Amino acid sequence: MTNGDLSVSEPMFPQSQLTPHIPETFPKDFTIRALSRDDINNVKASGYLDLLSQLTSVGAPDSDVLNARYSSMADTKPLSYYVVVIVNSANKIVGSATLVLEWKFIHEAGSRGRVEDVVVDKDHRQHGFGGLLIKTLVSLARSLGVYKLSLECKDELIPFYGKFGFVKDVNFLVQRFD
Amino acid sequence: MTNGDLSVSEPMFPQSQLTPHIPETFPKDFTIRALSRDDINNVKASGYLDLLSQLTSVGAPDSDVLNARYSSMADTKPLSYYVVVIVNSANKIVGSATLVLEWKFIHEAGSRGRVEDVVVDKDHRQHGFGGLLIKTLVSLARSLGVYKLSLECKDELIPFYGKFGFVKDVNFLVQRFD
Repeated sequence: MTNGDLSVSEPMFPQSQLTPHIPETFPKDFTIRALSRDDINNVKASGYLDLLSQLTSVGAPDSDVLNARYSSMADTKPLSYYVVVIVNSANKIVGSATLVLEWKFIHEAGSRGRVEDVVVDKDHRQHGFGGLLIKTLVSLARSLGVYKLSLECKDELIPFYGKFGFVKDVNFLVQRFD
Repeated sequence: MTNGDLSVSEPMFPQSQLTPHIPETFPKDFTIRALSRDDINNVKASGYLDLLSQLTSVGAPDSDVLNARYSSMADTKPLSYYVVVIVNSANKIVGSATLVLEWKFIHEAGSRGRVEDVVVDKDHRQHGFGGLLIKTLVSLARSLGVYKLSLECKDELIPFYGKFGFVKDVNFLVQRFD
């Protein structure tokens, strides 16, 4: 198990904050860690955008745009973006999920959590990585004290997320501008 | 119409950014503006927490907690919280809604918007304030370039939000920790 690997610089948050939430069953030869600025600076080597493109449209943001986006996420105080990635032994990203904290005045000026942008590389599916990402984020969110954790999903994923404590709630409405 | 009133200090964002999005039908004797630190420092006079308590549990956060929460929202770079309030001529808050921007690497490192915590004081309902808040936030969100705007709502509010362009999308799943 290589979860102590800290060779990347400028992680979005310290590995020590993540470690208590990583399931025991996490497979050796893979590491689960925070996204780092290295991953963004070396986006071709890290494979991060290629992975996200398996989820939805990514476009072709240039290096400056990606770095600015990383900064906007990482520089929130307190931290509100927890982008977690699974990397193989070559430090290539094969899975990712994000916990976003949304700050509130309600609930004792509390925060709620949102699970966003969950994706596992097509060549690494059926090995439980999605579940490991969700378990990790649910545990992390609970430790951060969110009063509620939510996500949106298609019909066929309701049973999957149900295994990790999520139940169907109110309606999700959308309008798109792109 | 008193929408040029800038007597509050430290608004979360400039009134000039909001003005283009305020519907023409906004009633005189009321102002729609950004939440300000004044509203939080004088929370009894502003009535902000009293209003939010008509939406859900608010608790009794103290002044330091409220100020820290205001700072966390207002100090994001770029701004990601747009808390909009409607105040009467005595500067008492009678309506509020929040546009939250969630930053992404997907969609050209874009952002999506969320409409959150929409509430109108019980003595000021049936006058269209809810619709005015939503119209304002939808226009503001579009101008900020979000690729998608979403919200969660109960069954009975689907027709209301439908009037402003929202349609039912995927499922909304939740787990609660409080």
